[in-house]
Amino acid sequence: GGISCVLQDGEVFEKAGVNVSVVFGLLSEEAARQMRSRGKSLKAKDGKLPFCAMGVSSVIHPKNPHVPTMHFNYRYFEIEEADGTKQWWFGGGTDLTPTYLNEEDAVHFHKTLKEACDKHDLKLYPKYKKWCDDYFYIKHRDERRGIGGIFFDDVDSPSKEEVFQFVKSCAKAVVPCYIPIVKRHCHDSFTPEEKLWQQLRRGRYVEFNLVYDRGTKFGLLTPGSRIESILMSLPLTARWEYMHTPPQSSKEAEILEVLRNPKDWVH
Amino acid sequence: GGISCVLQDGEVFEKAGVNVSVVFGLLSEEAARQMRSRGKSLKAKDGKLPFCAMGVSSVIHPKNPHVPTMHFNYRYFEIEEADGTKQWWFGGGTDLTPTYLNEEDAVHFHKTLKEACDKHDLKLYPKYKKWCDDYFYIKHRDERRGIGGIFFDDVDSPSKEEVFQFVKSCAKAVVPCYIPIVKRHCHDSFTPEEKLWQQLRRGRYVEFNLVYDRGTKFGLLTPGSRIESILMSLPLTARWEYMHTPPQSSKEAEILEVLRNPKDWVH
Repeated sequence: GGISCVLQDGEVFEKAGVNVSVVFGLLSEEAARQMRSRGKSLKAKDGKLPFCAMGVSSVIHPKNPHVPTMHFNYRYFEIEEADGTKQWWFGGGTDLTPTYLNEEDAVHFHKTLKEACDKHDLKLYPKYKKWCDDYFYIKHRDERRGIGGIFFDDVDSPSKEEVFQFVKSCAKAVVPCYIPIVKRHCHDSFTPEEKLWQQLRRGRYVEFNLVYDRGTKFGLLTPGSRIESILMSLPLTARWEYMHTPPQSSKEAEILEVLRNPKDWVH
Repeated sequence: GGISCVLQDGEVFEKAGVNVSVVFGLLSEEAARQMRSRGKSLKAKDGKLPFCAMGVSSVIHPKNPHVPTMHFNYRYFEIEEADGTKQWWFGGGTDLTPTYLNEEDAVHFHKTLKEACDKHDLKLYPKYKKWCDDYFYIKHRDERRGIGGIFFDDVDSPSKEEVFQFVKSCAKAVVPCYIPIVKRHCHDSFTPEEKLWQQLRRGRYVEFNLVYDRGTKFGLLTPGSRIESILMSLPLTARWEYMHTPPQSSKEAEILEVLRNPKDWVH
């Protein structure tokens, strides 16, 4: 079960949703494999694995092309193997998808996430920053979905309590990461051409979510899952133009460059 | 190699494209499996299968919500197995995706396809009509993409010449199937609400193509394939609203009913 809450066609946000979900039941070995990003094998009793999962996720697509789209998701899984062993792990992340590059925003976003990670272990931010760049990769375009953030999965050490504290720090960083950027730009003026570029980028967002996102694919494959909650992440509107290529040295080419070659925003 | 030709933002058509392609090379066994819809196993030499494929495909998304989207694709494949045996087969189909149901159009479309099939074998239309309804199924919505048409794959009997004659009949039926419908409705007036419903249906079109369509998935997985040609099938614009449900007995509910429970349009 769970609760979905969606704002649509608002003043600042074109579409913004939050899902809170708590689900449990029996997983097939196939579905369990989809859930773990690294192929740890799970031994099932009669091919079925009792599991329990809970998480919160949110996607915010603003109207103004100068305000980036933001996504976060934090989740906890538990699976019981045939011999009664319980496996548990945390996963999640926060990432930003701007239509246009604003370096100051990018640095603020990543710096806030880095600070949340650094409180726990200095190795976390660099590792999860790279994981994020690798995860949100649209292979057929050779582009990332956005300018990243942090992403991790299958995290089950050093201890449940310590990982939970870390995940809480990440979740608490969501608002200070993003809201200052929204406030800074939500009244920026924009041209029809900028809105059009935003719509083309929204098309890429749809491509990533429907073709690659593991959470979406898992949800679409799970019988009885709530489709409207899963596809809440899709933008209100999107656009696909044949062979659209922004002119060299344009603002559109500038963001594409960063999506093709991810940058380090904080050191 | 091949040629793509796309019309965008025209008077009648929002986006309309044609791809002609002729490709050959070496397939992995995995890719070869993706190509055949029924799991005929292919024995590869050193894990690689020489293949040759050619086809023509087209998707037409009109502006006016009273003119349906049309798609067709006809293709021929050849694969050489380790022992030198050549396997060949034809595949393809023509299908219609209306925003609103017009029974007269649906009957005209299916009748024209049936006549093309009936010239060759009376069993073909019922079989390929059903195959089409089954193929263009958006599982997570329990809806078909449209009102169908014909679809077939892996057809390698009775003989290459006879199947080729049949495929030619199908291809020749494309224009008489569709163009009368375009002419009949391209000047129909429409409301902003009808345009909005069209945009939501375009969203479903994107969902089918990115999540289920075997041709699209095969293309996105094939290194070196031309992404712009593959994704030419996507509409210029699409829309996703959270929990959109048309009122009972509305024109929107009428088409949904047919997408959920396919009808026989000709007997």
